[in-house]
Amino acid sequence: MKIALAQLNYNIGDFEGNVSSIINTIDKAKNYKVDLVIFSELSVCGYPPQDLLEKKSFIQDNEDAINKIAEKCYGIAAIIGAPTINYRKKGKQLFNSALFLNEGQVQFQQNKSLLPTYDIFDEHRYFEPNEKFNIVEYKDKRIAITICEDLWDIQPVESSFAKSQLYNITPMEKLSEYNPDFVVNIAASPFSYTRIWGRKNIFIRNAKKYQLPIFYVNQVGAQTELVFDGGSMVVNNSGLIVDELEYFAEDYKVFDLEQIANAEKNHQENDDELIKKIHDALVLGIRDYFGKMKFEKATLGLSGGIDSAVSLVLAERALGNENLRVLLLPSKYSSDHSIKDAVDLANNLNIEYDIINIQNIVDNFEDSLSHIFKDMPIDITEENIQARTRGTVLMALSNKFGHILLNTSNKSEAAVGYGTLYGDMNGGLSVLGDVYKTDVFKLARFMNSEKEIIPENTIVKPPSAELRPDQKDSDSLPDYDILDKILFEYIELQKSIGDIIDEGFDEKVVRRIIKLVNSNEYKRYQAPPIIRISSKAFGAGRRMPLVAKY
Amino acid sequence: MKIALAQLNYNIGDFEGNVSSIINTIDKAKNYKVDLVIFSELSVCGYPPQDLLEKKSFIQDNEDAINKIAEKCYGIAAIIGAPTINYRKKGKQLFNSALFLNEGQVQFQQNKSLLPTYDIFDEHRYFEPNEKFNIVEYKDKRIAITICEDLWDIQPVESSFAKSQLYNITPMEKLSEYNPDFVVNIAASPFSYTRIWGRKNIFIRNAKKYQLPIFYVNQVGAQTELVFDGGSMVVNNSGLIVDELEYFAEDYKVFDLEQIANAEKNHQENDDELIKKIHDALVLGIRDYFGKMKFEKATLGLSGGIDSAVSLVLAERALGNENLRVLLLPSKYSSDHSIKDAVDLANNLNIEYDIINIQNIVDNFEDSLSHIFKDMPIDITEENIQARTRGTVLMALSNKFGHILLNTSNKSEAAVGYGTLYGDMNGGLSVLGDVYKTDVFKLARFMNSEKEIIPENTIVKPPSAELRPDQKDSDSLPDYDILDKILFEYIELQKSIGDIIDEGFDEKVVRRIIKLVNSNEYKRYQAPPIIRISSKAFGAGRRMPLVAKY
Repeated sequence: MKIALAQLNYNIGDFEGNVSSIINTIDKAKNYKVDLVIFSELSVCGYPPQDLLEKKSFIQDNEDAINKIAEKCYGIAAIIGAPTINYRKKGKQLFNSALFLNEGQVQFQQNKSLLPTYDIFDEHRYFEPNEKFNIVEYKDKRIAITICEDLWDIQPVESSFAKSQLYNITPMEKLSEYNPDFVVNIAASPFSYTRIWGRKNIFIRNAKKYQLPIFYVNQVGAQTELVFDGGSMVVNNSGLIVDELEYFAEDYKVFDLEQIANAEKNHQENDDELIKKIHDALVLGIRDYFGKMKFEKATLGLSGGIDSAVSLVLAERALGNENLRVLLLPSKYSSDHSIKDAVDLANNLNIEYDIINIQNIVDNFEDSLSHIFKDMPIDITEENIQARTRGTVLMALSNKFGHILLNTSNKSEAAVGYGTLYGDMNGGLSVLGDVYKTDVFKLARFMNSEKEIIPENTIVKPPSAELRPDQKDSDSLPDYDILDKILFEYIELQKSIGDIIDEGFDEKVVRRIIKLVNSNEYKRYQAPPIIRISSKAFGAGRRMPLVAKY
Repeated sequence: MKIALAQLNYNIGDFEGNVSSIINTIDKAKNYKVDLVIFSELSVCGYPPQDLLEKKSFIQDNEDAINKIAEKCYGIAAIIGAPTINYRKKGKQLFNSALFLNEGQVQFQQNKSLLPTYDIFDEHRYFEPNEKFNIVEYKDKRIAITICEDLWDIQPVESSFAKSQLYNITPMEKLSEYNPDFVVNIAASPFSYTRIWGRKNIFIRNAKKYQLPIFYVNQVGAQTELVFDGGSMVVNNSGLIVDELEYFAEDYKVFDLEQIANAEKNHQENDDELIKKIHDALVLGIRDYFGKMKFEKATLGLSGGIDSAVSLVLAERALGNENLRVLLLPSKYSSDHSIKDAVDLANNLNIEYDIINIQNIVDNFEDSLSHIFKDMPIDITEENIQARTRGTVLMALSNKFGHILLNTSNKSEAAVGYGTLYGDMNGGLSVLGDVYKTDVFKLARFMNSEKEIIPENTIVKPPSAELRPDQKDSDSLPDYDILDKILFEYIELQKSIGDIIDEGFDEKVVRRIIKLVNSNEYKRYQAPPIIRISSKAFGAGRRMPLVAKY
């Protein structure tokens, strides 16, 4: 049996476009005598559709789309993912379904049993869990169909408090009673750099346990914050990965069920490969945000520092230098080397730039406020006026020419609240908001590995916001390698203050950092969407009360 | 049997404070020979704790708190709400539990069965649903304990696509098999002005169906966006409301189980009572945001228009005029009457104000950008510069003196995107972001019902943003009474474009308005938290993909 994995990039709610991509792929598969072509979870509408699922018209359009695809399935079978209506009187309105299409119709439907409802997932919000299992027979083969989380009955666990078994049933146990010949898993599994191996291991473990080959098809492409990395694969019944599809790109590959016995030893990513994957995820995150929104052009404020430099290189790779235009916005505290570093970078990338000195505007704000502020001492207020003046100038360029403003804040500063709301926190999309400062440095080195794109001086100079004379990040924060470790323990691993101190970090530092994290929830609430690359990004996957005493 | 309803205002995560309030109430009840005192859902930690529930230390502190309360329960029983650990190997980590305390210990535990996971509710994210039922016997009475949604097996439905039965089980059917004498419902049920009667009807229907009295204890107080309105009540077994506790305030009342037969006919709120409830909800929303965050002082930009006027009156009632300081920020487009109206209002409320003309700063921005903009025509860019200049000046006052900036945008403009990100969309809390413009007018009339507080001219003049010469809202939007009806149908009732047109609205207008709503998700993503008064507010209860084609 010839089985094709179709790893496509869907646009949420774009039924016309998604159906057209699916049908084109079915036609291609027919030409090569493929027996079965597999698409990813909720491929018809794109994942995650969120509250669009609550719209009646959305579900009606979705049903029309399913019918259009089914009509093309003669001489070939396809498995697609789509929401379907739960016609029982009780329970949620919808199922998250895999549909087996053949002979012009839906011949079989398997609904999703395990509905992830944690981190960025909200599937219990929309779907009724499945409790009925069966397999589909096709060309003398018995196929067990699972949907993403259905194979995750045992989860990789990072926090000491989390459970590895979130669900009361194990769909594969039920399905294995029907003696299937192979397993299909259609998925929408987002990228996170800490879980690459953990995810592969899900398929390896299941293949070994049930001694069945698994054909896994993941969605690819970014949907606002979430980057789906693809990496669809075939795992044989010995638990060896036969082949993987591309990461961060559409891909399509045909496998012969009878010829998947041979495979090399499974390989675990090393650190260099991780940085490349993070890099590629961020480039795709930018590219799809713009492409799917029909935006072309972007801008950002280039400070001479490493965050805006790395953001600009990522944007250049996503959108092309011809679609970028940047502003240098020095104040009286900006050093000469910062302007030179920023100009050098813009020149290296051949990107149009303008320099606007903001000092006059800042002085004007301060003059206008002087009769109220009187002789009160200079404080954070004046720093914020600079940041907000820059934010306003950048948004003016954005409004006038249609360039979308990219936010360049990193995860370390977002965590401790070192950023000005309505100032440097402005932007339509945050490029580095899920990248710790230490990883921003690694990205810069990775970008410079063949030739110097980011000026060396930008990488080696001490980080500074340059909002007051001789300011350095290290004046008020521990070194970034210490800070980032504490933040990772607290945010990604959800460790308590006590547990972190027990690992040998300075108690006073730990308490101060965590207090900063907790007291800045209100700033992050108003931050732009952040491209997610970790297992716990700021944004929809982390829901902390703003008003709380803890 | 003497039963006390304790309707308290909890602070999320403040175990010390919450335990102290609960113990003080238990002591008070003991003094009056009360047999049973009932607190609300998750009273120990406050509702909703959100992802704090994922912290091991939070659950440990919660267990200590439960023990401290239990130790006080001698000679009296108490029902409290708290998360408890699910010790089974499989399933979510926690239950949402009601604990029956007596003789110094937890004598009985009933877990929540129906876990709301829609709109602002995410209970499946944290909790395992209960499937075991029992009653507790106490002083010859058999008590069935339910937790909030457990009585909502049949829901009031607004949208034509929603189901009225979201769950597969009906806890009261299971509990009624044990022949209880009365029902307790501990709840954390937030206010929404469209659901006051729908919620009462839940208790009336259940009391009648099972012919049992219901003692319902709701949380009171605001938790960031959510306002819990209290209104705890006793419904007798004829389905008559015996008594209601206060709305929007802490309250405590003792009932004799043997003396609840008599009650007057149930009463449904009229429109005037609704506006008063919305008013009180907003005042409590502001007061608790400040009180629980330990903030005292607020500021806002007073334009002379109705939104900032109504926001200021609400803030004055929540915080007192001594804690308010406002800015008037005219540009060359501000009319004389606007300044006069704003000054009159500040004087009526005896609130300190300053006037800062922003025109110089705006001119300075435009001059600095002129070499880039060259002779491009004036457009939205210049309007936004004005709004962002105002936003920056207001934030400077906020930073320098510690006044929290209140956002004054209304729901109608938030819906269609008439507002400037990083400008008039700034603020720590949005006061009117869930109030349609037509209801803002009703609030103004309500505030003026005894004497003129808001200048009549502010109410009767045509609404304008005053960002260009002779601008009026009606230049580009339909009349607010039409606009708000379309918005309500689309947002609250989730009707489709076709359904709304079928009701007689102009097709072109409907299509334009809905396109505006959909294309402005990105702006609302970065908006401040909005005090929620409706069944569908912008914010966490409405999760739309930013990047989508629908």
